[in-house]
Amino acid sequence: MATFLYMADAERGRCWGEMFRRDAPALDFRLWPDAGDPAQVHYLATWQQPEQLAQRFPNVKLLFSTGAGVDQFNLAALPPTVSLVRMVEPGIVQGMVEYVLHAVLDLHRDMPAYRRQQAQASWRPLPVRTAAQCRVGVLGLGSLGEAVLTALRGLGFDCAGWSRSRRSIDGVPCFAGEAERADFLRRSDILVCLLPLTDATRGLLNSALFDALPRGAALVHVGRGPQLVSADLVGALDDGRLGEAMLDVTDPEPLPADDALWRHPRVQITPHIASMTQPDTAAAVVLDNLRRFEAGLPLVGLVDRDKGY
Amino acid sequence: MATFLYMADAERGRCWGEMFRRDAPALDFRLWPDAGDPAQVHYLATWQQPEQLAQRFPNVKLLFSTGAGVDQFNLAALPPTVSLVRMVEPGIVQGMVEYVLHAVLDLHRDMPAYRRQQAQASWRPLPVRTAAQCRVGVLGLGSLGEAVLTALRGLGFDCAGWSRSRRSIDGVPCFAGEAERADFLRRSDILVCLLPLTDATRGLLNSALFDALPRGAALVHVGRGPQLVSADLVGALDDGRLGEAMLDVTDPEPLPADDALWRHPRVQITPHIASMTQPDTAAAVVLDNLRRFEAGLPLVGLVDRDKGY
Repeated sequence: MATFLYMADAERGRCWGEMFRRDAPALDFRLWPDAGDPAQVHYLATWQQPEQLAQRFPNVKLLFSTGAGVDQFNLAALPPTVSLVRMVEPGIVQGMVEYVLHAVLDLHRDMPAYRRQQAQASWRPLPVRTAAQCRVGVLGLGSLGEAVLTALRGLGFDCAGWSRSRRSIDGVPCFAGEAERADFLRRSDILVCLLPLTDATRGLLNSALFDALPRGAALVHVGRGPQLVSADLVGALDDGRLGEAMLDVTDPEPLPADDALWRHPRVQITPHIASMTQPDTAAAVVLDNLRRFEAGLPLVGLVDRDKGY
Repeated sequence: MATFLYMADAERGRCWGEMFRRDAPALDFRLWPDAGDPAQVHYLATWQQPEQLAQRFPNVKLLFSTGAGVDQFNLAALPPTVSLVRMVEPGIVQGMVEYVLHAVLDLHRDMPAYRRQQAQASWRPLPVRTAAQCRVGVLGLGSLGEAVLTALRGLGFDCAGWSRSRRSIDGVPCFAGEAERADFLRRSDILVCLLPLTDATRGLLNSALFDALPRGAALVHVGRGPQLVSADLVGALDDGRLGEAMLDVTDPEPLPADDALWRHPRVQITPHIASMTQPDTAAAVVLDNLRRFEAGLPLVGLVDRDKGY
């Protein structure tokens, strides 16, 4: 009998357990810390890579991340026999679509300015632009970026996307690679970062990148904290290159209470809540991947170790 | 030659003029105050009803409101030979969809709470609920209410609508009349008011109505200011019956700087900007209605004087 061990949040784990016992009764589902004999574990779901994985769980074949990102995993320390799978599930996608739609509408409709006006008891309508006059650019065209662009396009925004390698999304111009990045940035009034954290994206959101945006552009950062150079962001906001920033990720997390970003009048911060794995839909996706694995089919969300995502 | 007089904002009027001259060159388009002989005016577009309309413009047949609402018109003082037409145009609809989507997402994703936490430099994730767990109710099922519900439903919210007379919207349960209002309110975690201002809706958003909502519900008010009893709203927010309110309309407008609503921690105020007529799409809709009028076809947005909208 194959054994599945869940090593993350216990409350969510109980929800997974119910679904596994109902939909895959032949699988032995175990909830950490009741792991039983570690040598029996074939499949492991976890948010962070356990230390000494190979020694502790010598027979693990599949490692499931319970989150969309896998930068918290040390790919170099993973035995070559273990495959790592990102979480690609409708709950994560839906949460991200909601967060980014809200952020883009908040910026497009001048809500930060209206909140500042409210603090002054000032009733002053600002010109309304149509969505078609607002150019939104999304960095990162994985399943999240594609879903976000499709939703924004449905509302009439003038959308474009950028990714490292060429992608195509229905009705959305897609730019690719270093060579096309400047052209993409030049037409992004609102820039949304949905990139995975890799050596190539660490520190990418810096002063040089902000220089390439239209003056007064806005940033929505829902990638990973270390992609943003905070001092460069503050500099660009203070000299008017950027108009507003909305950050759901910071470096470090939690953001320390004495960090000046908390108090910057043009920065909105949320505590990494854009998107959260929903246990019921996540468990269903993992079960589907287990069936694929046992049938020798390709896995959904399998991580390419060379790319790091 | 038929004559059309535009009596509202001059900048928008110039945009109308360009479209009229291009698409309806047989029409004599005049921009206030260059009205020429008032007796020649057959069609009049205005935001507010001119005083002594019948005396000043004895040959007016159609009066076009440049806004979606017509409560600023005195229907009793309109000669029976004059038809009044509301503005039903895609720019207004799109603006309202954007505003309400933003407001509902802001409330659904706890953004007011995160803004208060940011002011305390507090990093504290709150539980994420799915859109399907959030029940949104829209009061008023005209073209705006229907478009808003269709967009919210597309994001997965659990939607319902209410209107005075029975309406039907694909995939959305619709309640009708006084008899069904309590059932509708009981299932509205977020209540959106999109009703026209009439004697029946003046003061409708009062303590008794807030009592009928689930405890902690939120209000998005994009109808008309006099529909809301401000003191009742503050009372319901302060004793926890309501959680948050987002107001785009107030009574009076502009809201005076010393009004306590500006400073209530659970009230967000925008200065009646949810939706604005876009001159290019509005002019196209008016031209289409003129063609319908001349061909004897029914007009889009014709006001029923008995109902008042």
